[in-house]
Amino acid sequence: MSLPKSVAISDHGPREGFQFERAQIPTARKIELINRLSRCGLESIQVASFVNPKAVPGMADADEVVQGIELNPAVRYLPLWLNVAGFHRALRYRDRLDVFGSISLTASEAFSRRNNNRSFSENIAAQRDMARSYDEAGVPIKRGAVLAAFGCNYEGDIPVGRVLDMIRTIVEIAEEHHADLQTLTLADTMAWANPASTRRLVGAVMEQFPRLAISLHLHDTRGLAMANALAGLEMGVRHYDTSVGGLGGCPFAGHKGAAGNLCTEDFAFMCEEMGIETGVDLDALIEAAILAEEIVGHPLPGSLKMGRPLAAVREQKAKTKERAV
Amino acid sequence: MSLPKSVAISDHGPREGFQFERAQIPTARKIELINRLSRCGLESIQVASFVNPKAVPGMADADEVVQGIELNPAVRYLPLWLNVAGFHRALRYRDRLDVFGSISLTASEAFSRRNNNRSFSENIAAQRDMARSYDEAGVPIKRGAVLAAFGCNYEGDIPVGRVLDMIRTIVEIAEEHHADLQTLTLADTMAWANPASTRRLVGAVMEQFPRLAISLHLHDTRGLAMANALAGLEMGVRHYDTSVGGLGGCPFAGHKGAAGNLCTEDFAFMCEEMGIETGVDLDALIEAAILAEEIVGHPLPGSLKMGRPLAAVREQKAKTKERAV
Repeated sequence: MSLPKSVAISDHGPREGFQFERAQIPTARKIELINRLSRCGLESIQVASFVNPKAVPGMADADEVVQGIELNPAVRYLPLWLNVAGFHRALRYRDRLDVFGSISLTASEAFSRRNNNRSFSENIAAQRDMARSYDEAGVPIKRGAVLAAFGCNYEGDIPVGRVLDMIRTIVEIAEEHHADLQTLTLADTMAWANPASTRRLVGAVMEQFPRLAISLHLHDTRGLAMANALAGLEMGVRHYDTSVGGLGGCPFAGHKGAAGNLCTEDFAFMCEEMGIETGVDLDALIEAAILAEEIVGHPLPGSLKMGRPLAAVREQKAKTKERAV
Repeated sequence: MSLPKSVAISDHGPREGFQFERAQIPTARKIELINRLSRCGLESIQVASFVNPKAVPGMADADEVVQGIELNPAVRYLPLWLNVAGFHRALRYRDRLDVFGSISLTASEAFSRRNNNRSFSENIAAQRDMARSYDEAGVPIKRGAVLAAFGCNYEGDIPVGRVLDMIRTIVEIAEEHHADLQTLTLADTMAWANPASTRRLVGAVMEQFPRLAISLHLHDTRGLAMANALAGLEMGVRHYDTSVGGLGGCPFAGHKGAAGNLCTEDFAFMCEEMGIETGVDLDALIEAAILAEEIVGHPLPGSLKMGRPLAAVREQKAKTKERAV
């Protein structure tokens, strides 16, 4: 057990969440939510995905969103892209977004084939192409990511050894480009992680790649995101992707396979209660979660927005004591 | 870290859940759910509360429920009562229910005054009365419980020392009656626990009362029930109260203050994935959770009933491999 003193929270709600919704969310409302999140003390916000609008209609307004948001200099605004074309779209916003290179591999070949129609080796080749594009654009490669790092709905459990192999390849590609890889994201894309496997994988990665900061990207599809995040904290992991309100999921049975991310405000609350600094304003985050719920028009899975944090009760109690004295 | 090899799960859904619902649930449907739960491999089920039907209309049919359920000899069926009158009602079902005495104290005086209009000392006196009633009826005292053991919405954080004092009083009352106290429930009645405080309190109780088996009764009002349960598991706690589907809570904003218990099937899934035996049949539990949702007529918070467990994927994968060989 080595709890970190502080954590850095990256809210992926505007990207994961709005991409997931069936109804088209008006651009102005997306901007409204991001502006709200900008004032919550988050380390970064993933604001849009530069993907094919035919494949992901919910992200067709990525440009308008990026152009429309009010930037807070204390927050890093992150784009996502999946290929060179998307990267070039993101590049136009280097003044607004934190555009850096990322080498992403998927630990499940079955998933990679279904999602991108690529084998492992085709995926590695594609990432080498991406790395070359980053170099050409003078964009530093800072991050690695392994998707489906714990398991896959099409392939089952993913062995730790395979993830370590993937990270070795990522490090190799980064070294080919003299890149200073800083962070490695382990993504539980299909919610196969449990606290024991989180501990095992994180431990193995820390041992083999002690210079990489690990970041966890957890989904709550099977109810274990918070417990997995706790296992991460207990291993000393400092970086977490989350989504406000648990955007990206929905407790309605109608939304089958709802796979909300670890909920930002619930996770921040847990950290703060355990004495781990998050930098966030919990009340502001709850207001943002309520706004997100209003925008998507259905309940979001996060609990704290209904349960309310404890600071107000503690303050009230302290005041009562003062009066009594 | 000393994960237990197995856990005993007590489903409190039929009591906590049906008590919480605004609409009156038909008795036959309550019986249907309990019968379904009886076939899930649970250690025990809390089936009804013998309380004043004027105060808790949802429990007015407690007698009919207890009389109507089909008993599975492998399951313990538990009643709840809050006073001598309720105990005497439960006593009539000693052939059907596991009727044993419990000494319960509330760690928050503010909550105790609001809930039962009793001070600490009045509460202790009332528990001594209860203990005498148990003796008179020849019912063994087996359990102690501290409610609001982590914090209180009216009083704030509860110091560990106070909970230890309460347990000392409980042990004292038990000794006065030559009782063999076996289990001590720490109830996070208002969802103030976090993994660090769970660890602290459980650790202190284990140190001071090494002969008592600790049982955790956790609420998910602020999204931390699963993480707190993990902290309990990591301390070696073997007994958990849960509720199927997360009955007792609701993700609708309309159900203000929804405080569902730790969800049975999500918790059992986490244990099984970590290699901790639960004895439960996950698929049967998920069917029960779906039935519970149908009965209450609104979404229940549990995730696994939508996310589905992983065994089926693993089996499918194993079959594919076999075919390939």
